[in-house]
Amino acid sequence: MGGIETKARSRGGRQARRALRTASSFEMLPALERGLPLCEPMDEEQIRRVDEASLAILEEVGVVFRDDIALADWRRAGADVRDNRVHLDRELVRELILTIPESFTYHARNPQKNVQLGGPHSIFVPMTGAPYLRDLDDVRRLPTLDDLAMFHKLAHMLPALHSSAHHIVEPMDMVVSHRHLDITYSSMKHCDKTFMGMTTSPKNAEDVMEMCAVLFGETYLEDHPVTTGNCNGNSPLVWDETMLGAMRAFCRRNQPVLCSPFVLGGANTPASTVPTVVQVNAEALSALAYTQVIRKGCPAIYGHYLSTVSMQSGAPMAGTPEISLMNFMIGQMARFYRVPWRTSNTLGGAKTFDAQAGYESATTMSAVLHAGANYIWHSAGWNEAGMHCSVAKFIVDAEQCAMGYRMAEGPRWDDFDEALAAVRDVGPGGHYLGHPHTQANFQRAFFMPRMFDNNSIEQWQAEGSVEITERALKYARKLLADYEEPKLDEAKDEALRDYIARRKKEIPAVDELNQVH
Amino acid sequence: MGGIETKARSRGGRQARRALRTASSFEMLPALERGLPLCEPMDEEQIRRVDEASLAILEEVGVVFRDDIALADWRRAGADVRDNRVHLDRELVRELILTIPESFTYHARNPQKNVQLGGPHSIFVPMTGAPYLRDLDDVRRLPTLDDLAMFHKLAHMLPALHSSAHHIVEPMDMVVSHRHLDITYSSMKHCDKTFMGMTTSPKNAEDVMEMCAVLFGETYLEDHPVTTGNCNGNSPLVWDETMLGAMRAFCRRNQPVLCSPFVLGGANTPASTVPTVVQVNAEALSALAYTQVIRKGCPAIYGHYLSTVSMQSGAPMAGTPEISLMNFMIGQMARFYRVPWRTSNTLGGAKTFDAQAGYESATTMSAVLHAGANYIWHSAGWNEAGMHCSVAKFIVDAEQCAMGYRMAEGPRWDDFDEALAAVRDVGPGGHYLGHPHTQANFQRAFFMPRMFDNNSIEQWQAEGSVEITERALKYARKLLADYEEPKLDEAKDEALRDYIARRKKEIPAVDELNQVH
Repeated sequence: MGGIETKARSRGGRQARRALRTASSFEMLPALERGLPLCEPMDEEQIRRVDEASLAILEEVGVVFRDDIALADWRRAGADVRDNRVHLDRELVRELILTIPESFTYHARNPQKNVQLGGPHSIFVPMTGAPYLRDLDDVRRLPTLDDLAMFHKLAHMLPALHSSAHHIVEPMDMVVSHRHLDITYSSMKHCDKTFMGMTTSPKNAEDVMEMCAVLFGETYLEDHPVTTGNCNGNSPLVWDETMLGAMRAFCRRNQPVLCSPFVLGGANTPASTVPTVVQVNAEALSALAYTQVIRKGCPAIYGHYLSTVSMQSGAPMAGTPEISLMNFMIGQMARFYRVPWRTSNTLGGAKTFDAQAGYESATTMSAVLHAGANYIWHSAGWNEAGMHCSVAKFIVDAEQCAMGYRMAEGPRWDDFDEALAAVRDVGPGGHYLGHPHTQANFQRAFFMPRMFDNNSIEQWQAEGSVEITERALKYARKLLADYEEPKLDEAKDEALRDYIARRKKEIPAVDELNQVH
Repeated sequence: MGGIETKARSRGGRQARRALRTASSFEMLPALERGLPLCEPMDEEQIRRVDEASLAILEEVGVVFRDDIALADWRRAGADVRDNRVHLDRELVRELILTIPESFTYHARNPQKNVQLGGPHSIFVPMTGAPYLRDLDDVRRLPTLDDLAMFHKLAHMLPALHSSAHHIVEPMDMVVSHRHLDITYSSMKHCDKTFMGMTTSPKNAEDVMEMCAVLFGETYLEDHPVTTGNCNGNSPLVWDETMLGAMRAFCRRNQPVLCSPFVLGGANTPASTVPTVVQVNAEALSALAYTQVIRKGCPAIYGHYLSTVSMQSGAPMAGTPEISLMNFMIGQMARFYRVPWRTSNTLGGAKTFDAQAGYESATTMSAVLHAGANYIWHSAGWNEAGMHCSVAKFIVDAEQCAMGYRMAEGPRWDDFDEALAAVRDVGPGGHYLGHPHTQANFQRAFFMPRMFDNNSIEQWQAEGSVEITERALKYARKLLADYEEPKLDEAKDEALRDYIARRKKEIPAVDELNQVH
């Protein structure tokens, strides 16, 4: 399988090469089923040590839940609540997280695009939350709803992306207090893959749930995860009212949330990797446990947002060795608890789509694949510490996801004997290009990145010295020109639009920004 | 440990931050001792299957040695030689490779820069062989001997580089038939780390050996590996006279060679990853075995140069998933045979130092570290499929090596309890920046890449919108301004220059190019 698009199998030779040049299918890759062994730096005793230390923090230090409903819930659940600080007994935590499903099917409106999540299955989800974009002309500017639609269309077409996410970019032309409605509709309409639900407030989360009920049917939701919502913690050891309220909106409808401590390593965690993992683990466990207080058996996802902080400038950093190490260890903890887990991909602080962006993104991609993350968020477009989503980078990152997918599947052994027969046929000093095994297998054998130019400098110059940003933007334009809308059922579409119109009348138009990563 | 330079430990706080801004030490990092578990996709049975298939190829298909001396050597060693094709019995191969040392000390002229190679120890060696450079002004042009000296000086100063290599760039102002003398002298003079020896012809290799004897002493060489030479195979299954002659020159003096099949996956190997590994393994084994025919017990290194070929253009590709997978598997095979192994780092086909270069390099870096390669060649500067060495990329890659080094060491547990005490001190909602543990540990806790800009776009613009190429070139200029020559012993220096002068009189001045990767 080669290039950024999945290609139809063909019979090889000249015909295959022609097919490769012309045919394009935008068929989504199924959820990745990992075949490569994972990077697991901790032995069993070290995992126990992190577990014990985390549970000791939950018992002895406690976690602040800045939310009266949550505090009341915790009291009812038998926790030791002092003011707004909840001390969680280790037995209670262990018992609560036991009912979180180890894996589940994440349903799309097109059932062919349902994906398995958890265990050996991983999905790639685009970045979200950018207040700026670098557009089809690589100009950095404020995004509109049309720009968001563009990203949702690209997410629809790029095979290794498994979701349209939600607000890939913030549609700044929409009123803030109504924006979640426009965003959710765009995610549903332009792409028939899974999507994310806004958690910018409990009320907004309720609206997302209502819209999901319109799209999928109220009873369907009860048994089928159809969206995911992110809830960030305020590290160290605090969960706030907005996030907890949104969490309740999701969990009550049996929809999974990502329980994501927000790590600025060294600033809101200790200046040390393993102890940072302990704190993150305690925080994630406290929220995961709370999802089961809200609704026992509800799917939930162990999350985190990981950065380390430059002690020179205070800026968050990405692609650093400690982020890779923490990913490896957090993966082990999530598997120890048998809970699916979320990480972040392609993070970085570059201001343009330069070599820094490439190094940071590829380092992170590799780390999260070796770590075995299930829900690989921010997998396309992220740049400038999340301040902008780059169209060019979105395209290249999506191809990197396809390449990472191929690596993480592990080696194939299915043509071992056949290919070794070719070694005997060809013999010393021969070449394989004309051999029938090569002609039949080259397409799937070696990934051919469309976004990387591997020609000679003379060829490259003759073709206009086109750099990667321009190549990617050209391809984005081609994709958008080829885009075919995956039509929503007309009655559902109308019902969604009716719901949005009604809510826009009910909700006061307020322009105050609330960002979620 | 932060930034591209190693920093002196300091006591934390304001003082530490000041130290971080001002103090610079160019102390070399010791050979990496890996602490992270490796990525090993094959189980024992699969390793045996690759081993068996490789040995069957050696027995039944055979390997062509295009060299009369080697054929005679093989006959004496008991191999079944038919014309120039050597059929190697599996018992003979197994017996021969048994005497290759599993690891050895690679000696530098400054004994403090000796490095351990093999087993858990890895070293980073700069790229070599570029016929062009992108210079301190990012201009692509033909290199001179002064440019080569510049790279050797940078290699001397960059802490994560363990070698000056040899012809990082081809000094085009030097006569081809004399060039190996100038190159070797430059590697020895401007850098006191380990260096590589030219293998462009058997005679050139002899000259390198003589120069090593001058620098280290003839008897010292007998027991001490002081250089490494690369010998490429002509895949499939051919070794040529030039390489075999150079190999003999090295092995006879007990100096290690890299036995490197040159893989253009799909063109000179089957279009399939595992079978390609089988062929590479057979090729590498045949050369490794020959090193022991030349001199039993001589150190030798399992090598390869890996690329996959675009079936659209015929161009070699880098950073592809199959290259990562093959690295993982080849690592397993080398460890199965208990032989140190060489791979290539930071390969890529980008024409400029753009995002493509970043993705390709970081993907490869990650793969070779997870693969557990010992001799990580082409670790800095490679671009444009090796056609140029970029000064900017050299600097950034060297920092990436320092970052990869940190990751591959694995997590530290030495301040576990102390850092967790900080979690209790700080408590929910607090922050760690002022905590004594943070102040004492931030420098070593989180790597702070000097070449990555993580400031806000406003700060970045206020500072002139400096992109990574310009940042790296500025730092290269600073390093060169700070460079202090690690003086050669005067008598040895004179003896080396005498040797070179004599040989330049003896060797006819011929300008014919022979490149080795």
